[in-house]
Amino acid sequence: MQQLDTGSRRIMLLSDTIRRLIRRRATVNLLKIVGKTHAADLALVFKSLNAIDGRALFELLPDPETAADVLSEMEEDVRRDYLDRLAPERLAGIFQEMSTDDAASILDEIEDDERREEILELMEDEDSDGVEELLTYPENTAGRIMSPDFLALPETMEAAEAIRELRKASEAEMVFYVYVVDDEGRLEGVVSLRELVTVAPDKILEAIMSREIIHVQPHVDQEEVARLVARYNFLALPVVDEQRKIIGIVTVDDVVDIMRDEATEDILKMVGTSEEDIASSSSFRSARIRLPWLFVSWIGGMLASRIIGHFHEAIAQVTALAAFIPVVVGMGGNIGIQSASITVRGLATHRIDPQRAWPYIGKEVGAGLLLGIVYGLLLGVASAVLYWGDPLNIRLGIATGLGISTSMVLASIMGSSLPLLFNRLRIDPAVASGPFVTTAIDVIGVSAYFLIATLVIL
Amino acid sequence: MQQLDTGSRRIMLLSDTIRRLIRRRATVNLLKIVGKTHAADLALVFKSLNAIDGRALFELLPDPETAADVLSEMEEDVRRDYLDRLAPERLAGIFQEMSTDDAASILDEIEDDERREEILELMEDEDSDGVEELLTYPENTAGRIMSPDFLALPETMEAAEAIRELRKASEAEMVFYVYVVDDEGRLEGVVSLRELVTVAPDKILEAIMSREIIHVQPHVDQEEVARLVARYNFLALPVVDEQRKIIGIVTVDDVVDIMRDEATEDILKMVGTSEEDIASSSSFRSARIRLPWLFVSWIGGMLASRIIGHFHEAIAQVTALAAFIPVVVGMGGNIGIQSASITVRGLATHRIDPQRAWPYIGKEVGAGLLLGIVYGLLLGVASAVLYWGDPLNIRLGIATGLGISTSMVLASIMGSSLPLLFNRLRIDPAVASGPFVTTAIDVIGVSAYFLIATLVIL
Repeated sequence: MQQLDTGSRRIMLLSDTIRRLIRRRATVNLLKIVGKTHAADLALVFKSLNAIDGRALFELLPDPETAADVLSEMEEDVRRDYLDRLAPERLAGIFQEMSTDDAASILDEIEDDERREEILELMEDEDSDGVEELLTYPENTAGRIMSPDFLALPETMEAAEAIRELRKASEAEMVFYVYVVDDEGRLEGVVSLRELVTVAPDKILEAIMSREIIHVQPHVDQEEVARLVARYNFLALPVVDEQRKIIGIVTVDDVVDIMRDEATEDILKMVGTSEEDIASSSSFRSARIRLPWLFVSWIGGMLASRIIGHFHEAIAQVTALAAFIPVVVGMGGNIGIQSASITVRGLATHRIDPQRAWPYIGKEVGAGLLLGIVYGLLLGVASAVLYWGDPLNIRLGIATGLGISTSMVLASIMGSSLPLLFNRLRIDPAVASGPFVTTAIDVIGVSAYFLIATLVIL
Repeated sequence: MQQLDTGSRRIMLLSDTIRRLIRRRATVNLLKIVGKTHAADLALVFKSLNAIDGRALFELLPDPETAADVLSEMEEDVRRDYLDRLAPERLAGIFQEMSTDDAASILDEIEDDERREEILELMEDEDSDGVEELLTYPENTAGRIMSPDFLALPETMEAAEAIRELRKASEAEMVFYVYVVDDEGRLEGVVSLRELVTVAPDKILEAIMSREIIHVQPHVDQEEVARLVARYNFLALPVVDEQRKIIGIVTVDDVVDIMRDEATEDILKMVGTSEEDIASSSSFRSARIRLPWLFVSWIGGMLASRIIGHFHEAIAQVTALAAFIPVVVGMGGNIGIQSASITVRGLATHRIDPQRAWPYIGKEVGAGLLLGIVYGLLLGVASAVLYWGDPLNIRLGIATGLGISTSMVLASIMGSSLPLLFNRLRIDPAVASGPFVTTAIDVIGVSAYFLIATLVIL
């Protein structure tokens, strides 16, 4: 994490200037600024404007192409206003200027089915066909995020001819690779643009292509695509159908976005909320999203309270036992969350191999044991000293010390093994680990503490 | 998150085969497999082998170039064994084959200063000079991760000549852009390789270059570099010195790794641990890393227990009050962690603008209030019903209901505002938010609950 960087300061100044110019209706100056500002920066400016200023600025975008770039770069919640308000004709014109994959993912954000259909119909057939094809693949798969604008050339073509083809292919996105296909259109190899320009012009593609080509099928999860691109340092990954015919490419710029979004998603899932929560500015929506996770946790808390209820005589006799509930439960919860977070992230980045997890669990539980001993001694001594005058103070110390140690060890066992268990059961460990781990630890920690306490004290 | 994907299954099979062949000393077959396997895959295989098998496989890598690729792709903890054991002469030969930025970052992992110096001295001067220059920049900055292998050509050069230069520059990493500089070597523009091959050969670079070029200085944080690359969809970002002379480029493949590592770092920091913990297999090291964070939390727990101690008379009278401590403190803790996680991630991805944070805090606290009311009613009714026979049951219900609502609202205020406060104070919100938020919520939640309870019941 880094604080206020020069980049965001620049955007802030730009936003302030634009806001002032809009208020003063200084259209000429605004047009000048809009003309020289990168679409990605304009998208950030829109984020900081209120709805009225934003709409005024949007009207000043010089052409559908710029509007397409800006809309593509906007965050989903900022974009929603424009998707809802602009006339379908205008949106169709804008979508036509977008790359096919962006158009598909943004069209998919329009919740009103009729409106979406209308826009698609208003688009030129050649543009809407590509978009509709991508929309047939499920969300978060290679098929949905691939770009159908790539260059596939026959094996027998000469390098010079390939370069001529390249000149014609103005649509193709980020052409840094040329894909080489056989007579049937099956993917056979890849030539980087750099190789293409550095070989003799009469070399045929087959002679210079690399045959070690990694490809994915369209149903593959986008996270796996991102992992492959990261692992092999690709700039693009070809997507092929069952006959190994190339149907699209996923480019590295999309992978960078996926990496960031998937990390955010994992963090938010672990605390029982979602991307929608962070994007939304409505307290109601946010509360509704978090309600279920908190409910699991509430049930756990109620269970813990029933368990404590069973020990009410012990508490009435030694009220100090109640005083140490937060530290015993809290320390268990903390070490449990540490183990769970490490495990979830380790699985996501493939640092932890779920097939060889025992040494890993062993290490986690070992750490839990060491820390349990440290904090057991600390709490035991502290509580014996704090209740010095009390005749039961030594027993209290033993009870709290043993209680916190047990709670921490059990928490580290559950924190490290539950995410692995969920993974084995094909439940997303990130979504399942947070509430279950916390709740299980609350219940088990409280039970262990009071069982030990009654054994030691009464 | 996605479960067992085809990629990792493939690696697992490969590892099993290689392990079997090593045991059978089937060198010829091993060499054949090593020859056709991508270095990134071999690096994953090394991870799953034990130290002895791993060393045996390393000896079979055909040349220093392959060894360099494999070593670059390995995870830090797997690589350590080789950095510690291989002869300095051999390592020097391997480092020479690495890209300069990889060599710098991996050399930096060698903790023994003398050994590192020895390796640098054994390397060819032209290689070690580049590495040593990168090592003068602090960790996690653009200067440390940039590659000094780029192509900078004068403005007056013709496209055809530029392509000839490209052919000569075999060292340059991922040449997809050619940087254009003036007589003094100052960065003036950029031409993509694609533009270069598609224009007339006699065009001069000045005429075709794009002048809208975003660059960074070497001290800029790598996270900011990653953000710029993600925002503008670059494949590389030039690094310039104070005179705007280009000194290196950061390539998108490094950015993909940074994105993933920074997300991991943020998650781990929030729960009070670090990358070192996830990479280490020692329980002792892991416990030592987590000890301080847990100590802050322990202090908070002790404070909470002192506060509860003050209310011992109330507890002796109504032991049910103690029973509800876990649910009141737990629900506060949960909603606080939700708010804190959203805020930390929102700041990291620039979704939340720290200068305009009030509406955001308002939304979070609104959600806390709504959820507080829901769970207040739920707990109030539940506790009144559970203690039906007790004459104080209605008052107990009011106390627990109000207690949990207050605790949840206070938690959402602290969870959303503390990370912003830390950010303002230039303390990393990720590192500071976890323990402080949890601890503050424990203490304040318990205090609020018992204050309300004594007012309502006694």
